[in-house]
Amino acid sequence: MKIAILGTGMVGNTIGSKLIRLDHHVMMGSRTAENEKAKAWVELNGTNASHGTFGDAVKFADIIFLCTKGEVTLDVLQKIDVNAFKNKTVIDVSNPLDFSRGMPPSLIISNTNSLGEEVQKLLPDAYVVKSLNIVNCEVMVNPTKTNGDPTMFLCGNNSDAKILVKKLLQDFGWNDIIDLGDITGARAMEMMLPIWLRIYMATQNGYIGFKILR
Amino acid sequence: MKIAILGTGMVGNTIGSKLIRLDHHVMMGSRTAENEKAKAWVELNGTNASHGTFGDAVKFADIIFLCTKGEVTLDVLQKIDVNAFKNKTVIDVSNPLDFSRGMPPSLIISNTNSLGEEVQKLLPDAYVVKSLNIVNCEVMVNPTKTNGDPTMFLCGNNSDAKILVKKLLQDFGWNDIIDLGDITGARAMEMMLPIWLRIYMATQNGYIGFKILR
Repeated sequence: MKIAILGTGMVGNTIGSKLIRLDHHVMMGSRTAENEKAKAWVELNGTNASHGTFGDAVKFADIIFLCTKGEVTLDVLQKIDVNAFKNKTVIDVSNPLDFSRGMPPSLIISNTNSLGEEVQKLLPDAYVVKSLNIVNCEVMVNPTKTNGDPTMFLCGNNSDAKILVKKLLQDFGWNDIIDLGDITGARAMEMMLPIWLRIYMATQNGYIGFKILR
Repeated sequence: MKIAILGTGMVGNTIGSKLIRLDHHVMMGSRTAENEKAKAWVELNGTNASHGTFGDAVKFADIIFLCTKGEVTLDVLQKIDVNAFKNKTVIDVSNPLDFSRGMPPSLIISNTNSLGEEVQKLLPDAYVVKSLNIVNCEVMVNPTKTNGDPTMFLCGNNSDAKILVKKLLQDFGWNDIIDLGDITGARAMEMMLPIWLRIYMATQNGYIGFKILR
């Protein structure tokens, strides 16, 4: 499939490289066409990898991963032609973290709203699916790094898009996937970040996974 | 030990009865001395069980479980002589749920504050420990109901109180306990309620446990 990665940070790099290994065509998008980090990523990842502006990447792809820092996600999306997202699946893995008051960060949007919902409002003709935001990026593409078989959640308003994302999650190695319903489930998924951060601070282990026993 | 249970609902009943089975002396406290639900609980639980007002129960006990509904916890505490809590361990298992906007409930206090912290502010000479709020009450006293060995968290400002609570948790059957640090960890623990509720709605299974893989 043709997949866009918006964001050139560690999350975008890790998911992008995994998608290349799974034989997808991946374009990494950033604010400028000549982003050095995107170029370096393309060089490492061979002929199925390419790079361009955020807009180029969205136009190229059928599926778009939002791997920007949560605090800039909405700002980035507002700068892209909204029509380019029409009928496309947008996987939001970002977290609206507020580091301005020190560690651990709080959430910019929380409890009665979520970044996932705000993304869906900005892109009304896209199928937004929230997933993967509850673990670090190495665990996103390799859940066994947690020393077990953790649970992953997804939520969104479009069933077909969720089937597509579920298949990608399975290709990433996720065996236990719970569909939390519509995009308002993003509130609960984003509110898992504080416990993730607290566990990380308590254990100094970033390879954490949540297994839902039931 | 002498333990108070504040609240006569399902949570108070279940924890109270478990403590009786563990050979503790338990007084169930409620708004009035002659609460019918408290009387019925005493009749079922034998000579180590007693009941009284909230104030009676706190005076009687060394350890106090807050099993009131989260939305009334602070109101209940404000009606009890604050001096009766001095140097006592207070285990807050309640959740500040707001059902006024329908299901699933949101949180009354969230993200940059928590009910646990508010309880500690109201009772400055007590040792408040937040724990158990992330599972239903049957799982609180019998974690194997989740078909596994789930993780429990606790947090609070006083180390000795946390040691005491950890021992009680182990007596309840919890083997995997993570100390999240000071009482501000209650923010993260209370923000797990939304995901609990969403998983419950998706799976129709209330015997959920969170196992932290690492």
